[in-house]
Amino acid sequence: MSAGFFLTLEGGEGAGKSTQARRLAAALEARGLEVVLTREPGGAPGAEDIRKLLVTGEAARWTPLTEALLMYAARDDHLHATVRPALARGAVVISDRFADSSEAYQGAGGGVPPETIAALRRLVVGADEPDLTLVFDLPVDIGLARAATRGGDARFESKGRGYHERLRAAFLAIARREPGRCTVIDASGTEDGIAAAVLAAVAPALRAKGIAA
Amino acid sequence: MSAGFFLTLEGGEGAGKSTQARRLAAALEARGLEVVLTREPGGAPGAEDIRKLLVTGEAARWTPLTEALLMYAARDDHLHATVRPALARGAVVISDRFADSSEAYQGAGGGVPPETIAALRRLVVGADEPDLTLVFDLPVDIGLARAATRGGDARFESKGRGYHERLRAAFLAIARREPGRCTVIDASGTEDGIAAAVLAAVAPALRAKGIAA
Repeated sequence: MSAGFFLTLEGGEGAGKSTQARRLAAALEARGLEVVLTREPGGAPGAEDIRKLLVTGEAARWTPLTEALLMYAARDDHLHATVRPALARGAVVISDRFADSSEAYQGAGGGVPPETIAALRRLVVGADEPDLTLVFDLPVDIGLARAATRGGDARFESKGRGYHERLRAAFLAIARREPGRCTVIDASGTEDGIAAAVLAAVAPALRAKGIAA
Repeated sequence: MSAGFFLTLEGGEGAGKSTQARRLAAALEARGLEVVLTREPGGAPGAEDIRKLLVTGEAARWTPLTEALLMYAARDDHLHATVRPALARGAVVISDRFADSSEAYQGAGGGVPPETIAALRRLVVGADEPDLTLVFDLPVDIGLARAATRGGDARFESKGRGYHERLRAAFLAIARREPGRCTVIDASGTEDGIAAAVLAAVAPALRAKGIAA
């Protein structure tokens, strides 16, 4: 077990993960903790170069399996260059998306077999699973409307409503399957309300690992 | 089994694979066959974009596992966009490097466990293993000297002599393990002599699959 704390934020488009990640990072830094705020795909120089291949171009640019392999290549670089060094020195790492997104997007959304996604996860993530994962849940209509206003990763947002419904169901299924790691956050409320729910989930998990928060 | 014929050329740096691939393609086209001459990493628009990440930058830019995942992402795209469609319409596909290069470079050269490389190969290549693989064998000193004259994929050539000795041994081990698929070509001779050896290996394999050559 690492000295630090590995928190991942997961969920569909427009759920407010990035905003909440920044607010939580500021709140924890104000309490004197070292926080590394990062994201996937990306979070390290090489992984950000791979990200450019993933988030630009047409929706059908890559098959779901190619996409899963690119995601795991980026994840391996992110773990090696950013996440593991930060955890080893005792930092709190907050990642906006991580391995559950591959299970939802390329697995449930894209049709890559669950055993393939699971094999890649074991291979790349190994023992470095998150200490806590917050699953931001939101009706698809609200999330897509918010994402459209914001602009952003247009290649994923263009894939159609049924795709995004499968994503939502997949994230909720992960949370049910791993209740010890995952907490579902209702992302339909106000920004302040969601921030309070996030902190209420994170603070006891930090304390349980001996980190004052 | 596909209607076409899938030939891969493997081996270390400076063995003359690319030159011989072009000569063979011309010879087979002169006999009226459709030939698709391709290469890895690359061989399709997406895979060529991934190639740019792999063949530029410092030798230590990627860990061997990240590199293997990127290679297999590129390979999946190459198979999907170029190799499988060509084989389905009965073409002869000649690929300058394929999956054996991942076993040699990222496996034996980089230290990625053999079972990891084998799992990725099963996942991505599946039933589309080459009909014939020519392993171009050459003493490391000669190959590196030739590659240095030519210029080229400097990131791989800069990895040191012991690395390239491991590669050579790995390619020869693959050929010993799979004698039905692999033929070793002595790449230390003249260009014309090697071309004759290549044709002598390829022609009977084409005929065995009912392709006149």
